[in-house]
Amino acid sequence: MAEPHTIPRIEDQAEDTLALTPDLVRDVLEAGDAETVRARLAPLHAADVADLLERITPDQRAIILDAIRGVLNPDILAELDETVRGKVVEQMAPQELARVVAGLDDDDAAEVVADLDEKTRRDILARLPQPDRAAVEQALGYDEHTVGRLMQRATVVVPAYWTVGETIDYLRADASLPDAFFDIFVVDPRHRPVGSLPLSRILRNRRPVGLAEIMDGEPVVLPVGMDQEEAAFLFRQQDLISAPVVDEAGCLAGVLTIDDVVDVMDEEHEDDILKLGGVSEDDLYHAAATTTAKRFPWLLINLGTAILAAVVIAQFAATIESLVALAVLMPIVASMGGNAGTQTLTVAVRALTTKELSTTNAMRIVVKEMLVGGFSGMLFAVIAAVLTFAWFENWLLGAVIAVAMIVNLLVAGLSGVAIPLVLDRMRIDPAIASSVVLTTVTDVVGFFAFLGLATVVLL
Amino acid sequence: MAEPHTIPRIEDQAEDTLALTPDLVRDVLEAGDAETVRARLAPLHAADVADLLERITPDQRAIILDAIRGVLNPDILAELDETVRGKVVEQMAPQELARVVAGLDDDDAAEVVADLDEKTRRDILARLPQPDRAAVEQALGYDEHTVGRLMQRATVVVPAYWTVGETIDYLRADASLPDAFFDIFVVDPRHRPVGSLPLSRILRNRRPVGLAEIMDGEPVVLPVGMDQEEAAFLFRQQDLISAPVVDEAGCLAGVLTIDDVVDVMDEEHEDDILKLGGVSEDDLYHAAATTTAKRFPWLLINLGTAILAAVVIAQFAATIESLVALAVLMPIVASMGGNAGTQTLTVAVRALTTKELSTTNAMRIVVKEMLVGGFSGMLFAVIAAVLTFAWFENWLLGAVIAVAMIVNLLVAGLSGVAIPLVLDRMRIDPAIASSVVLTTVTDVVGFFAFLGLATVVLL
Repeated sequence: MAEPHTIPRIEDQAEDTLALTPDLVRDVLEAGDAETVRARLAPLHAADVADLLERITPDQRAIILDAIRGVLNPDILAELDETVRGKVVEQMAPQELARVVAGLDDDDAAEVVADLDEKTRRDILARLPQPDRAAVEQALGYDEHTVGRLMQRATVVVPAYWTVGETIDYLRADASLPDAFFDIFVVDPRHRPVGSLPLSRILRNRRPVGLAEIMDGEPVVLPVGMDQEEAAFLFRQQDLISAPVVDEAGCLAGVLTIDDVVDVMDEEHEDDILKLGGVSEDDLYHAAATTTAKRFPWLLINLGTAILAAVVIAQFAATIESLVALAVLMPIVASMGGNAGTQTLTVAVRALTTKELSTTNAMRIVVKEMLVGGFSGMLFAVIAAVLTFAWFENWLLGAVIAVAMIVNLLVAGLSGVAIPLVLDRMRIDPAIASSVVLTTVTDVVGFFAFLGLATVVLL
Repeated sequence: MAEPHTIPRIEDQAEDTLALTPDLVRDVLEAGDAETVRARLAPLHAADVADLLERITPDQRAIILDAIRGVLNPDILAELDETVRGKVVEQMAPQELARVVAGLDDDDAAEVVADLDEKTRRDILARLPQPDRAAVEQALGYDEHTVGRLMQRATVVVPAYWTVGETIDYLRADASLPDAFFDIFVVDPRHRPVGSLPLSRILRNRRPVGLAEIMDGEPVVLPVGMDQEEAAFLFRQQDLISAPVVDEAGCLAGVLTIDDVVDVMDEEHEDDILKLGGVSEDDLYHAAATTTAKRFPWLLINLGTAILAAVVIAQFAATIESLVALAVLMPIVASMGGNAGTQTLTVAVRALTTKELSTTNAMRIVVKEMLVGGFSGMLFAVIAAVLTFAWFENWLLGAVIAVAMIVNLLVAGLSGVAIPLVLDRMRIDPAIASSVVLTTVTDVVGFFAFLGLATVVLL
């Protein structure tokens, strides 16, 4: 029973995961014998145990895995981060891994098996009982990131001529149905979905009512080859809980449920954030050398763009030599352009992801962002000019920085929305490539406008 | 009936939203008379109509709103972006707005009413029928971003001594139950939740079975005051579809469902991305002047940090004057530090959000990121030294940039994870504040290390 005193427990622990307090982690690690470790882990949700395994050192992980060898809850493996799962799988004997995979839902099993190396994969597949093996092999037949890979093959389907009563009797009688389901799909004789019924509607109608009378006709159907992000978009847009997946012939092949969609949303958002920051994948659990190697290409590209900016500066070496204040002030112009452009870029990339920015309104947003750039440029032109005059007592230098600021912020506003739009049209992911192109533009334009103007006006 | 030929429709339209093609938008806008506009909008989902209203110009919006005046589907209002909703609401007469609000679920109604100005809010509340009004007022009594504000008040509750049969009879008889629900909550005589039952389990058990036998005891309960992000975390972690919400006395106050949680996740992710980019809120639909004003404070802070960097450079004006190559190369050192630091920062901020970075593993991650910084620093030290020697034929200058690069990338690795950790500990949102602190550090350290070393070694 949930006594009221259990409630504050949930609120207290904002600093760590809700169930996984630092105390509990210490408790488990200091348990000593395998018996105690198992007892302490038993009341935890699989996702919490997975979190714990992710957060501790490899040595600690080995101790805990030893303790729960043979009794590992399969769901823990499904909940683990890919990198950590790879390491955990390495420490498991093939027969144990096969037992765990067999204990997973077919979509989770496919995910775990997909990450194994070729040899282990064949070994594990050979050890799986026949229906599980067929399901996993079928799932692996679809591309990664498609609905086919993600769906649950076991579904609850009924014909349209059944009544509510017949449906309930069938659900009570057939023990092979999936554990949890949220909608029942109505199919025609060729197994094509023709309607869907939320369970609440079955429960609220009387036994003699025919399904055809109460079902939602023309249900949203997802083709097996649909990209998972498109499916996630549909789920959000239409507040779906589950949706039927159909094969090339339009026949029901499985069901996609909201819990998988939530995971896709999480992945998608992680991807967007990391790519904008110049990181190709979540590398929290990688070794330092691996992380260095993975992040290297991005930094190398950035070095290239920084050199390009340096080349621009080098053209004005004589100007800088005669007025060293230019070297002091030039990073300000470049940096303000980079920051203003990044603001625009962030909004634009996000709007492309949520499909709020499209061909219908692209032109309007470009014009708006150039206006924003122009307004900001004028504001910061005044501020920079005043500060420059106060510092160097040179009003011409103040005028130069003012004009360069307006030019660079205008260009930043335009580039901030145009670059992601163009990349998107060229089918290059705007999240990963936009920011490097943008800062190149704002650096080059910033240095060129400022130093070029200075050369003309001040020398 | 879903004929197979309807399936490709969904895949084709990746460029715009799935239902909302540019053709359709043009179609609706060119419809001319109100009758035709209504006919074209009728088959669309409320979320798609909302997307359409967001994407067109204010003038076009006014025409469409005129056409559907009096027959506006309430859900469209709930699906609209806040800014656009504000503008749509302004164009509606109070009695129409009241009709629309009354047609919404109580959580959506509260969201719409919360955004109204004080006077309109009182006006609309006075026009609402009594039960709706009480529900909205009660929801508004809870803080924004809490579970209490987000929950649906109408729930399906039954006592533990009921059987499956009694439960089904009750569901069939009571017309006042909510339209859609996914779990039934079992409460004790004081209305405290003691169990929950997914609908599939009710359907799969026979009528005489007692609920107490088949319910999940000790359900996850959410206090009304719980932050919505904590609730979203719990939903993801435990794959929940709905969860009971309890008041201070532990009594059932409502239910939180996955569709609301999906919206929270979306908001949360949008927040994270925008804040990392230095934008305080989604401003796609704001006027240019409003957007400029909202983005100004962030740019002003950045101007401050750019000036700080300029002050550092100014200390070495004499050095630069005697060797202008320093002015050419110095942005490279600063920029590489900024980019490497941003990579680390992005991973760290994301890991703080997902609670993967916590007190348990903070030290380990800090050490790892310093190692990554050190490795990258050495790699880029060599590259930069070679390039510098090739360009300026000055091996001492190459040595200076190499050492400065190592120092700055080491500092970038440390700062990239330490800054968000410290901000988080100080209860400042790391997403919004980290990047400005980081680039200040990497600029200042970069310029100081490079120019300082140059002053010592080269003069």
